[in-house]
This record gives sequence, structure tokens and C-alpha cells, in this order.
Amino acid sequence: MGKTTVSIGDIHDAEQRIGSYIRHTPLLREENMDDALGCSVYLKPEMLQITGAFKLRGALNKMLSLSEEELNRGIITSSSGNHAQACAYAGRMLGVRVVVIIPEDAPEIKIRNAKNMGAEVILWDRRYAERWKKVEEEVDKYGFTIVHGYEDYDVMAGQGTIATEIMNDLEDVDTIVVPIGGGGLISGIATAVKETKPEIRVIGVQAAASCAYYESRRQGRKTSMESQPTIADGITCGSTGDNPYPIIEKYVDDIVTVSEAGIIEAVNLIADKAKLLAEPTSSVVVAALQEKKIDVRSDEKVCAVLTSGNWDVDKFGELFSGNEVGGVFLNGSK
Amino acid sequence: MGKTTVSIGDIHDAEQRIGSYIRHTPLLREENMDDALGCSVYLKPEMLQITGAFKLRGALNKMLSLSEEELNRGIITSSSGNHAQACAYAGRMLGVRVVVIIPEDAPEIKIRNAKNMGAEVILWDRRYAERWKKVEEEVDKYGFTIVHGYEDYDVMAGQGTIATEIMNDLEDVDTIVVPIGGGGLISGIATAVKETKPEIRVIGVQAAASCAYYESRRQGRKTSMESQPTIADGITCGSTGDNPYPIIEKYVDDIVTVSEAGIIEAVNLIADKAKLLAEPTSSVVVAALQEKKIDVRSDEKVCAVLTSGNWDVDKFGELFSGNEVGGVFLNGSK
Repeated sequence: MGKTTVSIGDIHDAEQRIGSYIRHTPLLREENMDDALGCSVYLKPEMLQITGAFKLRGALNKMLSLSEEELNRGIITSSSGNHAQACAYAGRMLGVRVVVIIPEDAPEIKIRNAKNMGAEVILWDRRYAERWKKVEEEVDKYGFTIVHGYEDYDVMAGQGTIATEIMNDLEDVDTIVVPIGGGGLISGIATAVKETKPEIRVIGVQAAASCAYYESRRQGRKTSMESQPTIADGITCGSTGDNPYPIIEKYVDDIVTVSEAGIIEAVNLIADKAKLLAEPTSSVVVAALQEKKIDVRSDEKVCAVLTSGNWDVDKFGELFSGNEVGGVFLNGSK
Repeated sequence: MGKTTVSIGDIHDAEQRIGSYIRHTPLLREENMDDALGCSVYLKPEMLQITGAFKLRGALNKMLSLSEEELNRGIITSSSGNHAQACAYAGRMLGVRVVVIIPEDAPEIKIRNAKNMGAEVILWDRRYAERWKKVEEEVDKYGFTIVHGYEDYDVMAGQGTIATEIMNDLEDVDTIVVPIGGGGLISGIATAVKETKPEIRVIGVQAAASCAYYESRRQGRKTSMESQPTIADGITCGSTGDNPYPIIEKYVDDIVTVSEAGIIEAVNLIADKAKLLAEPTSSVVVAALQEKKIDVRSDEKVCAVLTSGNWDVDKFGELFSGNEVGGVFLNGSK
């Protein structure tokens, strides 16, 4: 029988399993962001993780949990990008065949990177359900194991190692702020936190344009919403994940949303103060603090998890120059 | 009597003195830059250092070496920016008065940051000699101690701690590549390397537009040159420093130069692959590898020291978008 949830034990196992392959990213104290964000700011820069995103943690933990027979048949996933790239990297490292179904409108950099890392890429319908139908077809044909980006409990456990690193490096952290897209990352982080130090707050952040977890909590029931486009394309969330949802409801203290303009300002602030390229998806956590969506004390130690930096450099160029990016006109919002 | 050189002993002392104040920056293995640079690439990202540049190491080591009486009178320096900011930060931390003479044409971000950190800023003539005349006047009036950005041996010793960190984190590093402007950084690094593991190569990089150390080595004597403007404004070098020059001649294996177009390409490459904002001054080391100015084996472990990231975000925006920056037309060079 498969797992039915993720526990702190699974996360400690994941640490052992993936520790020698991944980068223990630094915890950066960003004193010069305190005024703008109203608290004592720490960043966990997962754009410095191998592959430019945290996703390698989960993908590796899953793949290292599989049997040799399963690995020999290969794995498959569907992802808008960073998870695909992580699977590709892990597969190349372990000598495992990796097939990724990527939505045909995904950013060029993500498709190119997955290919460069040796994955077999199938560009498919941008609709989530259509892509997963295609995954099932391929599984039936070739016997692949599915490595789902956020429904999989082993993937969640891998992502949870971010939280154990944060708690090791900053024992008295008060609050951890995490983007929510599919919900796998925050499920792992919240489990690690609440099953060891429940007094630490875990706050989730979504783009207001696409925030099914926020809406579900507001309505007190699992619900979907019609997603609007967002510059934070990696965390569009028209409906909640089946497995993450109960974990998030149990363990996440609060969920807040941020505006498109706020996300763009946050990308700029992170570049200016921390010299890091945080893709918009990743910057929502800083936007939430800058927009005062989270109540914080000025002496509160708040760690913002910056998930990734995989955005085309020329798009960063447009954004830093105040030009239109992805349908959002930036001048008006700076 | 003052010091007459810097030694590995001074650098070990500096480690003890500044260790608890500065950030031990990570050593990043950048596998996905190997193809472009032709070797096994490691980055030492000092833009993640507190104040966004390595300069805090030297400034702090100097100030922590002063007597209480000297600290009570305050310190003074002249700098185009990053060293000024480092002195300001160190002064605020230690409660020491800091006066900085900044050239009136320095980037806005550097002036603003020095002021924000509590330094008294005097904007003065952009010519080096004029500014240092002003420094001497202020010293005569107020009894300040001068903290020179590259002539000072204690400052060099502080910068040398970058090398001890690199050698600790990567015992079998083959080559360390370092930008040369005034020459203080590479003097500290080369001393640390050659007085412990002389088999490690130390290569210096200058902008071809302004490269007095390169010219001096070529001619076999200390010489000056007429500097052309360079986008790497932090390492303009019309003449060699008096104190760094003999150290560099003794210990630095080779000095190479890079083009303006190469520097710009390197800023882009570092952003794309490492998700870091490296100001052009800092990117010359990657440019030198990308332009094949340094002979490297494909399995050679090469560490490029990225010194800083303090450049206006909108200038990064222009550069990433391929527009003109600081008189250099970027489209033609990408």
C-alpha cells in the first residue's frame, strides 16, 4: 500500500537520502531589507540550488526511494518547468530514463533546460487534465513510474528538507513564508515545522489571480476557481491538490494573496538588496511582506523561501527596465 | 613602524578578527557553466557578502586593528563606492565616525548606500590625486585614520580571507581567477595562496580599457597608461598601486585583459546560469574564461571570484535587454 501522508520521519529520511547530492543553501540575513518588510529578514535562496530551484530535493528523494526495477523502467512527469528540470537532472545523475510532458506555452528556458539535461520532452496541451491523461497513456505503454510534482508524499518529504535546514541554521526563527502553487512545497515545510516546533508560524502566499488554496480556506471547503493569468506562472492554482490540501489545512497558519504589481516590486527589491534573481513565482513571499499582508513585529525573525530563479534573463531585463512582461504593463505598477 | 607587506600570518589573524562579523560566502559548483567556460567552474559569490561586496573583509580587519584612541577620532577614505560602503557599515557597527570622499560621478546606488549606512559623504573631484589631497586635508584637521582601499596591508589581509575560505571549501582547487583594480584584493588572495599552496594558480583579470598592471607586467616595469572608460567602473586602473605592485609581481601567475563586449556577455551568463547579479566589474573573471584568455584543462577546478553586485537594477535591466549602458552599445556585442 502506498503512503497516505508525509511525516517528520519521512523528512529526516529524505535528508539522509539526498544530503550528499543537493546543496545546503545558505540562510542569508538581509538587514537592508528590514525597513521595507517591517521585520528581521532572512532569505532562503533556493535559486542557488542545483538546477536553479528547490524542486531537485523532492524529485531526488522520490527517485532514490524507487526499486532498481522501477528505476530501470524510467520515470515520467508533467510540469510547467522547474520540476521537469529537476527530474531530468536527477535522472541523468542516476542513469534513469526521464520523460516529461511540458505545456506547449511554457517559458523557453524551462523547455531548453529539461532537454539539455537529457530528458525526453513531449510538448502537450496546456490544460492540466489533458497532460495527465497523456502521462497515464505513456505509463500504460512503457511502465514508467509517475513522479508527481506535488501530489507525491516522497516529493513533499524532499521539499521539507528546506525547513529542517532553516531550523538548523536559525534555531529561533519565528515565521517561515512559502509560495503555494500545487502545494507540495508548503506541505513538506509545514510538516517539518509543526511536527518539531509548532510555535513557528508557517504562512503560505498565492498570487491573487490564481489562488484556490486561499479561496478554499476562505470558504471552508475544497474549491476551484477560474484562474486569471499571473506573472507568477509557476504557481498558478485553479484547484487545490488532493493530497496537499488536508496537510495545508492542518498545518499552515495562514494563507494570503498578493497583487501582480506587488510581485513585480518584490522582484526588483530582491535584485536591488540581495543581488539575487528571483523569478516572479518565487518573489510572492517578499511581496506579501512588502504589501503588509502578514502581521509581523519589527523584531520578528522571518524567513522568506525564494523558490527559484529560472526565468529568461531578457524578461528580467524588461522587468527591471519597467517594460511590459507577459501581458502585465510594468510602468504603471512600479 | 608600519607594516611593509602582508603575510599568511596576517591573513590568519584577519580570519580570527573578522570571522564573526562577515559572511563565509558559499562556494558554488556551477556545472552548467562548464561548457561555456571550458573547465570545472566554481563561483565565490561575494555579492552575497554583507554590503553586497567583498570590501567589508578588508575594511573591518583594518578598523578592528586600530587602537581605541584611533577609533575615537574616526576614519576616512576615498573610494568609488564599494569600499566606502564597507567602511560605512563597519563604522556604524563599531560606533566609529566614518568620512568618505566619493567621486562626484560615482553610481547613485553607491553614494546612497554609503549615506544610508551613516557615513559622512563628501562628493569631490573625480580625479584620484585630487581626492586624496582632500583626504590629507581632512586628516590634518581632524586626526582621522586613513583606511585605504588597496594600499593598506591590513585591508589586503582582510581580503585574503576569501582565499582561505576557498581553499578550505575546495582543497583541490587548481586555479583562482580574480579581478584587479587597485590590486588590494589579489594581493591578499595571492599571498594566502602562494604562502600555503604555491601550486594553485592565481590569475588576475583587468578590463583592456584600463589595465596598468597588465601593461606594467608586459613592459617589465611599473608604468601608467591613459585609461579609457570601461563598463567595469570599479576596476579602472590608470596606474598601479605602490604597495600591491611588488606583491602582484611576486605572486600572481598571469594577468590577462578582457573586452567590453566580453564583460557584458559574462554578466548575462552569470545571471542566466547562476541567478546572481554580478556587476560588470565583478564579471571580468568569467569574461576571461569565456574569451579563452586563460589556458585551462576541461577537468581543471577553476574558482572565479565574483567581487560584487552593487549596480543599479535599472542598469542591469538595460544590459539584459541589450540596450546601451554607460556609453557601450550592447546590441552589437551580444
